[in-house]
Formats: sequence, C-alpha cells, structure tokens
Amino acid sequence: MKIRQLFDYDTWTYTYILWDEATKEAAIIDTVLEQVERDLQHIKELGLTVKYLFETHIHADHITGAGPIRKATGGKIVVHKNSHSECADILADEGDEFKLGEQTITCWHTPGHTNNDITYVIEGAAFTGDTLMVRDCGRTDFQLGSNDAMYASLQRLFNDLPEETQIFPAHDYKGFTQTTIGEEKQFNIRVGNNRPYEDFEVIMNNLNLPNPRRIDIAVPGNLKCGDLES
Amino acid sequence: MKIRQLFDYDTWTYTYILWDEATKEAAIIDTVLEQVERDLQHIKELGLTVKYLFETHIHADHITGAGPIRKATGGKIVVHKNSHSECADILADEGDEFKLGEQTITCWHTPGHTNNDITYVIEGAAFTGDTLMVRDCGRTDFQLGSNDAMYASLQRLFNDLPEETQIFPAHDYKGFTQTTIGEEKQFNIRVGNNRPYEDFEVIMNNLNLPNPRRIDIAVPGNLKCGDLES
Repeated sequence: MKIRQLFDYDTWTYTYILWDEATKEAAIIDTVLEQVERDLQHIKELGLTVKYLFETHIHADHITGAGPIRKATGGKIVVHKNSHSECADILADEGDEFKLGEQTITCWHTPGHTNNDITYVIEGAAFTGDTLMVRDCGRTDFQLGSNDAMYASLQRLFNDLPEETQIFPAHDYKGFTQTTIGEEKQFNIRVGNNRPYEDFEVIMNNLNLPNPRRIDIAVPGNLKCGDLES
Repeated sequence: MKIRQLFDYDTWTYTYILWDEATKEAAIIDTVLEQVERDLQHIKELGLTVKYLFETHIHADHITGAGPIRKATGGKIVVHKNSHSECADILADEGDEFKLGEQTITCWHTPGHTNNDITYVIEGAAFTGDTLMVRDCGRTDFQLGSNDAMYASLQRLFNDLPEETQIFPAHDYKGFTQTTIGEEKQFNIRVGNNRPYEDFEVIMNNLNLPNPRRIDIAVPGNLKCGDLES
C-alpha cells in the first residue's frame, strides 16, 4: 500500500491518502474541510479513484472534508457505529474489512479518546487517530472518552501489533510524523515501559487541558460530515 | 535505509534522521537549533550513533542545530565547499560518498537556491533541500541563487533519478511531506510538463517574495554551525 501523509498547519492534523498501486483504488483518512481543494487536486494528480473516506473518530478540533470530497469523488464515508452519524455511508465496527485492490484495511475499535475511535490497520502499518500518538495518547476528558478504555486500547495495540508496525497518528504537536509499536512500548510517556493503569489514570486526570477552540462548531460539523449547508 | 521525518512548526522546516538498521549508524539532515533537545532525545531512544550532520545548504530561514548536536554526539558536520564554512568538519563536493553501515549517501551539487546546495541521494530516495520541493522549487533571489543554475539542477534531477524516487524537501508550506520525481516531472508548477527555461525565468523573476524574517541572524548563525557562543 502506498501512503502519503499530509499536514493541516492550523489544526496540526495529519491526513493520509492510501492507495493500491496496481488498481489506483484509494482511501483518505481524516480529511480537513479547509484542505479539500488541496486534497482533490492531489488525488487527481496521483490518478486515484477514491473508494473510502475513513474517519478515525468524530473530531472535536477540526471539521472533516469528507462530505465535500464524497460529492466530488463518490467515495463512501466510514465512521464507527457508536458515532450514530446520519451522514456517513458506512457505520463500521470491530473487524470490518475494506479492500483497495487486493489489499485489506481492517477496523479495530480502539475507544478511549471518544467512544467511536477506529484504528485502521494495513500490512505493516496502523493509523491510530487520537488513540496512540507519538510518545503520547489522546485526551480522555470529553466526548465519552474514558481512561479505562484508552488504557485497554493502547495495551491491545501494543500486544496485538508487531513491534515494527509503523504508527501514523491523527495529530502531533512536536513535529513527529510517525513512530512504531516497539518505540511506544518503551518510550510512550503515558503507558510505555509497562506503566500500570493506576499511574496512567493519575496522569490523565491531571492534564487540565482547555477545551479545543473549535469544539462547539467541530462536533456538529462533523456529524454533518462537513456538509455545512445541508 | 530507515527514514524519519520531523517538522519544525515555526520555520516549516523538515529534518530527516536516516539510519542503517543493521549497524544503527545514523545521519541527520537539516537540523533546527530550537529542536536540538527533541532530536537528541529521539536519536537516543532509537539507539542510533550519529556519524554525519548533513546540511542541504546554508539556510537563510532558520539556524541549524548541527553544532550543538555535534558536541553531544561527535557527528561530523557536512556542507558544500562553496559555503566556505569554517565550522564544518567536511566540505563536500559533487560525487562525494558517505556510508552508514553498508549503505551509501551520495552528494549531488544542485545549486540554484544558493551556490552551495547539495541533494543527498540514497537508494530510492533523495533529500533535495530547497532545490526540488513539492510542486515547487526554492527561490533564487539571494545567497548567490541563480535561475540558470536552478533550472539546470531541476532538469538534472528529473533526468538522472528514476521516476519512482521518493523526494523529501527541506520545507513545505502547504502540508505536503514528500513527492516523487515522476509527479514533479508532470505537475511541478514551475518546471513540470517540460516548461522551457524562458517561462521559468519569468515566473522566478516575478515572485516578489519578502526576505526571510530571520536572514540577518540565520546566515551568520549557520556559518557558525549554530554554535552561537563561539
């Protein structure tokens, strides 16, 4: 699978274009509304046919571009069923598989940041959204987030993915672009080096983060798949 | 060769850590002074031995972190001989080769943005600095830049690297992280699709860009390799 990583500077969001080189069938993970024009142009130049628009979760920090890209390309919007999204085409669940050519993308339900997080797993790589991030993990204090669930999701990724698996997060705030399971098992500041749940819970309960600037427009906007006029 | 891309948010600069997995010998391309602590920590966690600190050119938009990283790791600083740098360990020229384990990094002199640009070429990829950028190229209006030289350098990269070569630039301002020679030959807005030199010259002469904010401190700082107290 070919992977192209793109960055939205204003919201520190990574968008990923995946494609099967043989068939040029493509998927896009976590688009950003303000970048739709860039992304459509790039897809066109790469000669891709968009089959799927995957969301790792209903975002609180930016509005997805999935709706407008669906209109332009015919791709199907995929989100986890717990989102109760009425604009998505497919409400996915644990174990669901999607194909690009002969290549498979598998959904793992990895809640904790929200109740509707999906990690999209391909051979050798995983797109972990706001669950596993570089040396970090997503916050758990809104949108039905949960320390219990986050800890369990991170342990699952550590236990069930090979150490050399490349990890691509939805965001990074220090300039990292990727990591591996092996690195995070050792060096993740919240759960690495076998840190027990009790320590993790104390850390997470004391982050004292402000709400995302755009949460009040982002969540409703994302429940419309970014089709703000609809 | 393993490649890890890192981003400096303030100056939109990409730093690259390359390493040979067998020996863990590493090189870092285009560090940023403000990110030295991050980079040293990352190198330590990856278990790498830094052999080389490569500069693609004497930058005008940020100060390198190569000097402080040299102090911490013993890596040798490499810049093109045209820079007349007195702080570098190695003044490199066209065709010079450096080894990480059994893997080779070759210097191509690709001037145009400055007179001292190096593209670092490895198997399957090239680090093109401010010469070839995603759909773009570096400006040519200061630091002994030259439209003639830039055009020739871009044509050389297009002609002498395979189309599937992955291209990693020193900067991007639209959120792109990489491209390929094949894409740029078609879609580069300044020289793609066989655009002739006469058109390129008109485009470059009409960019009317302001000077980089930090040019007056960056260039002298880089001629000290970022060792500002020395």
